[in-house]
Amino acid sequence: MRIALQGTGDAGGTPRYGCECAACRNIRRGPTHATVQTDGMQIMLDAGSTFPLQPPQAVLLTHFHIDHVQGLFPLRWGKGDPVHVFAPDDPERMKVLFGTPGVLEFHHPVEPFDLGSLTVTPIPLQHSVPTLGWLLEDNEGCLAYLVDTKGLPDASLDLLRATPIDLLVLDATSPPGSDDPNHNDLDEAFEIVRDLKPHRTLLVHVSHDLDTWKLGRSFDMPAGVEFVSDGHALAVVQGK
Amino acid sequence: MRIALQGTGDAGGTPRYGCECAACRNIRRGPTHATVQTDGMQIMLDAGSTFPLQPPQAVLLTHFHIDHVQGLFPLRWGKGDPVHVFAPDDPERMKVLFGTPGVLEFHHPVEPFDLGSLTVTPIPLQHSVPTLGWLLEDNEGCLAYLVDTKGLPDASLDLLRATPIDLLVLDATSPPGSDDPNHNDLDEAFEIVRDLKPHRTLLVHVSHDLDTWKLGRSFDMPAGVEFVSDGHALAVVQGK
Repeated sequence: MRIALQGTGDAGGTPRYGCECAACRNIRRGPTHATVQTDGMQIMLDAGSTFPLQPPQAVLLTHFHIDHVQGLFPLRWGKGDPVHVFAPDDPERMKVLFGTPGVLEFHHPVEPFDLGSLTVTPIPLQHSVPTLGWLLEDNEGCLAYLVDTKGLPDASLDLLRATPIDLLVLDATSPPGSDDPNHNDLDEAFEIVRDLKPHRTLLVHVSHDLDTWKLGRSFDMPAGVEFVSDGHALAVVQGK
Repeated sequence: MRIALQGTGDAGGTPRYGCECAACRNIRRGPTHATVQTDGMQIMLDAGSTFPLQPPQAVLLTHFHIDHVQGLFPLRWGKGDPVHVFAPDDPERMKVLFGTPGVLEFHHPVEPFDLGSLTVTPIPLQHSVPTLGWLLEDNEGCLAYLVDTKGLPDASLDLLRATPIDLLVLDATSPPGSDDPNHNDLDEAFEIVRDLKPHRTLLVHVSHDLDTWKLGRSFDMPAGVEFVSDGHALAVVQGK
């Protein structure tokens, strides 16, 4: 499978209105979301873009905050076959957002399921609303998309420790020492990397505060861990 | 003043999921919205884009349907001076969308007001929810932005007939003969053009149905009326 990270920023995006920090003067990040391409199938990981894309066959939604679902609003006015949206069960937020779901058909899996050539496993995360990460596996590689989260629940850690992860896409919102109860700061992201030992890690959901922090200093990055820009694309293959 | 039409499509966008029509195979339109640039001021006409832009100093909102307000969600997490959002008074929809308004400061003008070098006049439109068009005038020219609407209320027609309009940006959603109660079809848009006699007209909020209709035939376009693509930019000057 191939993944393209269309967006790598947080809910406020970069630049922020009225902000003169180094990041906001130099960097541009849209809401974190990605597209996974397999043989004959396009899957959205979160629906961050409201501009028409090549329409996906399925959407894996982490949660119902607006920066992760906004792309579903135009998508629902499609026609023909339903668009299957796999998401946590969050009836109240879904009702406000999708009183008119159109062609969207919501599913709330708790066990692994097949999606084309992939096996997909929902991974409960720790956020302010019900949130799921997603583990995508085929015979070429294994991708874990863990956004938005602060740390990981024990059961999710156990499951992920037992899985060799080729590519981890991980929430790293704030500079070290942040007290955000809903997102990893950089040290917390590194701790997850050391625990899960993925072959390669891309840090996403990056705030202007973290970008400004890292523009201003040198610091130790664990091997195989990278910050990337909106639009970054790569293949997920075993051990690469 | 200069205007750039970042988006020219309807709520579903083009292409639509699952649609194989000629428009959806060939054309791309995002939600209708524009940016007006004057000396030292950037103003958004509707907030259709959720990706970070150069932050505006003000937003003129036509109504609270999601394709017109979605860009406010990231904008609200700015800092410093408030972002002034001029909009119709629609408390219920505003409450659902903006329980957390952040730096957004909403205003509900019913009379003309000054915005930098511009005089701005709210123009009541005819849509499924409270909706305002916007008339922007400076000493170089006059721009009318009339989206989303089916026809125009009598009082708005009277006001606009008394105003020489240099550039009209007008809702033209459907092919002739549509029964959509909330948007102009092409004939209804042409009727407004014949009535108001603007120097130049750009048709927006164009659906995939209208694009497919016009790809398939020749038809009479009134002088000075154009369809344009997302990204179209021009200066609004008297008689041009």
